Amino acid sequence: MLHFREELEELKSKLLEMGGMVESAIHNAIYALVERDEERAKEVMWKEAQVNQIEMEIDDLATRMLALFQPMARDLRFITAVIKMNADLERMGDLAVNITERALSLMQEPTLRPLVDIPKIAELAESMVHRALDAFARGDAEMAREVLLADDEVDNMRDAVYNELIRFMQEERTTIQRAINLLFIAQNLERVADHATNIAEDVLFLVKGIDVRHHAEAREAL
Amino acid sequence: MLHFREELEELKSKLLEMGGMVESAIHNAIYALVERDEERAKEVMWKEAQVNQIEMEIDDLATRMLALFQPMARDLRFITAVIKMNADLERMGDLAVNITERALSLMQEPTLRPLVDIPKIAELAESMVHRALDAFARGDAEMAREVLLADDEVDNMRDAVYNELIRFMQEERTTIQRAINLLFIAQNLERVADHATNIAEDVLFLVKGIDVRHHAEAREAL
Repeated sequence: MLHFREELEELKSKLLEMGGMVESAIHNAIYALVERDEERAKEVMWKEAQVNQIEMEIDDLATRMLALFQPMARDLRFITAVIKMNADLERMGDLAVNITERALSLMQEPTLRPLVDIPKIAELAESMVHRALDAFARGDAEMAREVLLADDEVDNMRDAVYNELIRFMQEERTTIQRAINLLFIAQNLERVADHATNIAEDVLFLVKGIDVRHHAEAREAL
Repeated sequence: MLHFREELEELKSKLLEMGGMVESAIHNAIYALVERDEERAKEVMWKEAQVNQIEMEIDDLATRMLALFQPMARDLRFITAVIKMNADLERMGDLAVNITERALSLMQEPTLRPLVDIPKIAELAESMVHRALDAFARGDAEMAREVLLADDEVDNMRDAVYNELIRFMQEERTTIQRAINLLFIAQNLERVADHATNIAEDVLFLVKGIDVRHHAEAREAL
């Protein structure tokens, strides 16, 4: 069983490594957007292959461990949670690429004023990802709970950004194409926050054994 | 082991039942949009709870089967694939709700011409979901492959819709709010197609034992 514990640690550290890669991708995507830095954008694009590679390694390792060790109870829950978190992280990686593509397109045109509040949403979404992964690393239910609470704030910020962008478009039609790119960037950040929330829910299930998906009352009772 | 086979069948039929619910939700969301049918929209909204309920049942059953029966090889792959497909279906259900919310908002205003090509994208996305689930039900690799091939077509159709909507907005600012709702509906349909693609990939992995994620060359060689 020592071998099993070692592989479990490897699985955990691989997932955290992937998490770090995805955090960087999101951070660099927004940096490229704000600083109009094409090199940084390209870095996100070519590093996507690494994220995809580690996703498949994690999936393979998790499936192999289920087959080989036939774990029970908590260990089984841990491995199935890793399979789900892995899928969430991979999609966040895709979202970082989507943001980068829009950032590259925005670089071709003059800046649309102060990028509204997109950098603020990005900061909050990034911190949710970071805290969800930290909560997983430490088995910290309190931290996972904070991530769930932050999700509504991201939704509100995104709505405010939408309204401001729609005002821009209505006032000046030459902004439409750029405003739509920003609209989708805000949307992608909101989805990053959703995936961070999924991870936090998995952590709560692991640590506390309660399923908070689709249960507003269970979330509130935490 | 007879018991295991029975539970495996139950798992499969529950997943297909969920698939049917999600297909209806997408279909009704688009019906509500096209026909401006508020009752149909409300039906999608209140049925979401059922989708969430069955998602949790499938997850619980799958996890319990992993623990109880400690399946190997193909059976193990089957159960882990169900866990992933379940998550994809649940997100498609969320997307149907998003579409419905935008349809409800669009009903408050005059129709924006012939809804561009959104009903066509919807039809293709729906048929991808249907074929992905059929491919799973029958273990049909050929059908799964067709789903992968359809994904590019959805992307192209969505791009065409974007461009047309942006033209509308530029020509007439009073269309902006409505056009953005349609833009997001097109985006949600494209994500439905992505999730159908994920399911088709899982089916190919189950049937053929090859992992086509992130491997353009493996897809082409199919």
